Amino acid sequence: MHGVVMKDGQLTWSPVDEPTPAQGQVLVRTLTCGICGTDLHAREHIHEFLHGLEKTGTALATVPENGVVFGHEFCAEILDHGPGTEARFKPGTRVVGLPFLTSTRGAEYVGYSDRYPGGFGERMVLTEKLLFEVPNGLAAPQAALTEPFSVGAHAVARANIQGESVIVVVGCGPIGLAVIAALKARGLGPVIGVDFSPGRRRFAEAMGADEVVDAAVETQGSIWSRYGAGRRGRQGVVFECVGRPGVAQGVIDEAPRNALVVIVGNVLTDSVIDQVVAFNKELDIRFSLNYSPAEFQQTLRDIAEGAIATDNMITGVVAPEDINQAFDDLRDGERHAKIVVSFENRG
Amino acid sequence: MHGVVMKDGQLTWSPVDEPTPAQGQVLVRTLTCGICGTDLHAREHIHEFLHGLEKTGTALATVPENGVVFGHEFCAEILDHGPGTEARFKPGTRVVGLPFLTSTRGAEYVGYSDRYPGGFGERMVLTEKLLFEVPNGLAAPQAALTEPFSVGAHAVARANIQGESVIVVVGCGPIGLAVIAALKARGLGPVIGVDFSPGRRRFAEAMGADEVVDAAVETQGSIWSRYGAGRRGRQGVVFECVGRPGVAQGVIDEAPRNALVVIVGNVLTDSVIDQVVAFNKELDIRFSLNYSPAEFQQTLRDIAEGAIATDNMITGVVAPEDINQAFDDLRDGERHAKIVVSFENRG
Repeated sequence: MHGVVMKDGQLTWSPVDEPTPAQGQVLVRTLTCGICGTDLHAREHIHEFLHGLEKTGTALATVPENGVVFGHEFCAEILDHGPGTEARFKPGTRVVGLPFLTSTRGAEYVGYSDRYPGGFGERMVLTEKLLFEVPNGLAAPQAALTEPFSVGAHAVARANIQGESVIVVVGCGPIGLAVIAALKARGLGPVIGVDFSPGRRRFAEAMGADEVVDAAVETQGSIWSRYGAGRRGRQGVVFECVGRPGVAQGVIDEAPRNALVVIVGNVLTDSVIDQVVAFNKELDIRFSLNYSPAEFQQTLRDIAEGAIATDNMITGVVAPEDINQAFDDLRDGERHAKIVVSFENRG
Repeated sequence: MHGVVMKDGQLTWSPVDEPTPAQGQVLVRTLTCGICGTDLHAREHIHEFLHGLEKTGTALATVPENGVVFGHEFCAEILDHGPGTEARFKPGTRVVGLPFLTSTRGAEYVGYSDRYPGGFGERMVLTEKLLFEVPNGLAAPQAALTEPFSVGAHAVARANIQGESVIVVVGCGPIGLAVIAALKARGLGPVIGVDFSPGRRRFAEAMGADEVVDAAVETQGSIWSRYGAGRRGRQGVVFECVGRPGVAQGVIDEAPRNALVVIVGNVLTDSVIDQVVAFNKELDIRFSLNYSPAEFQQTLRDIAEGAIATDNMITGVVAPEDINQAFDDLRDGERHAKIVVSFENRG
């Protein structure tokens, strides 16, 4: 089989070893896999990414020099079952699922492992218990959006917004859009999307943001004032969805007193937060990274039933051989929300 | 009148201007005022303290070079009322209250203002609406503990602990003890107090900690493991009550995944938090600084009724002329929990 191998910052369509399902695992054929912002960062900063996990006590055994097949936003088709599975899905069933495996080396993140190929490879092994059947009629690219939209659903669940709030979403890339979608699916608002890019602001409007603000024109502090956040019982809630060093601190500097700050953007490189500012404002800073199987399943249902409108989200479909161009194109926030790699209809 | 004036890092018993109650303010005679850890830090770092508030958008107009009379943990006696007051308290009534004033310059913190003397002065003006009458029979030094114990009550309210939790309190100085008291008053636990000092660990035990741990002998990580925090639905909750640069980061480095970290210690100088570690652990970091009037009133009631046992808390009573010695003594965590300055029985 072939996969897109990331090695030394280069992505190359290359032969890779066929994975074999172990205890509790199934073998699948990849249909579609989205490109995540973390993939873009990890291409350049995979050592920092692994080091960050190591500092946290969740070290991965991945050795980047061995080559890594990225891809964790997948929709796939069941091919076969390994030992100790429940055979819950017949061959040919379309599934999405959580990109986690356990091996004899410990935890493995599908898409960031040097041993198990991710969704930019033709076949994968996945944990049967973490998979969900895609409802009839939902196209594979749409189903593959379950993973990034689950990130938004989890962040909004973490925020646990009660009462009247003013909600600012900083960064309207795929994660910001997922947060906006989850907020609007729960009827929360007003939701103000902030981005420098007109294209991304248009995506945010299409996703249901009540207002979009050009970050070059209005500060977050001005938005909070305009909406009266922090006064008359209106709590300020802000989701940091950019994930670049220093952005969280900027959000904190601008936040009103007693704000709830949810950090969803994954900064792979060093970034710090000024404790004194956060203390004097009595902030509540919640970091949001994963999602639960229940959140994942609910997100799949929301997409299938149209509670989350994903129609405009996929702005590009590329063959795996063309992934380098897609990675480059994604730097252009004007045109793209999500580009997916497709393995369907390949002769 | 006289007060202890802090100027250029020196504390001197000196003549100070008599304060005059303005709109909504009352004039009081100080009976007792506790020395706060923030006073110790502010003696050395008042410019950083003011700068930290300025960065937060709550700039005080205080010019330290003018001299500042510290003291915000007071019990006082009503002398007179200014214009626009409700005359809620007859002269001679003993009160405690929140140390906040507003002046034509904006917000003033009683105890950190160069215009309004704090509780290390013989007389103060205070905001009538923020005062509470001390119940009969509660001695002034005990009543003066309402302020620091309100800090603990607020921190525990901020944590909003639900379900089974393992609760670690890092630092068993006055703030750590106040947190332990508030936790035990609500029947929460197990509460594990951590400190390097045997004396402070004894105070923590007396305050009701279920276990005390010598920080030199066992790491926080080991405590979490021993109690199974992060597993079987037992959430890890940690209160950082030291307030020195780097301690919060140490707490974060040791915390289990998904822990709730409440930062109660007030770091006046620069201190940062590593965003990557907090993100990968999906922490919830809540900063706790102030308290509400309702929390203050409830704390006064808890002290008066014995729900919070303050018997062992006051380890020293000094005359204002001897405050320098008291500041020095408080560096010795072995002997002291709280030293109060007393103005009672002074001929």
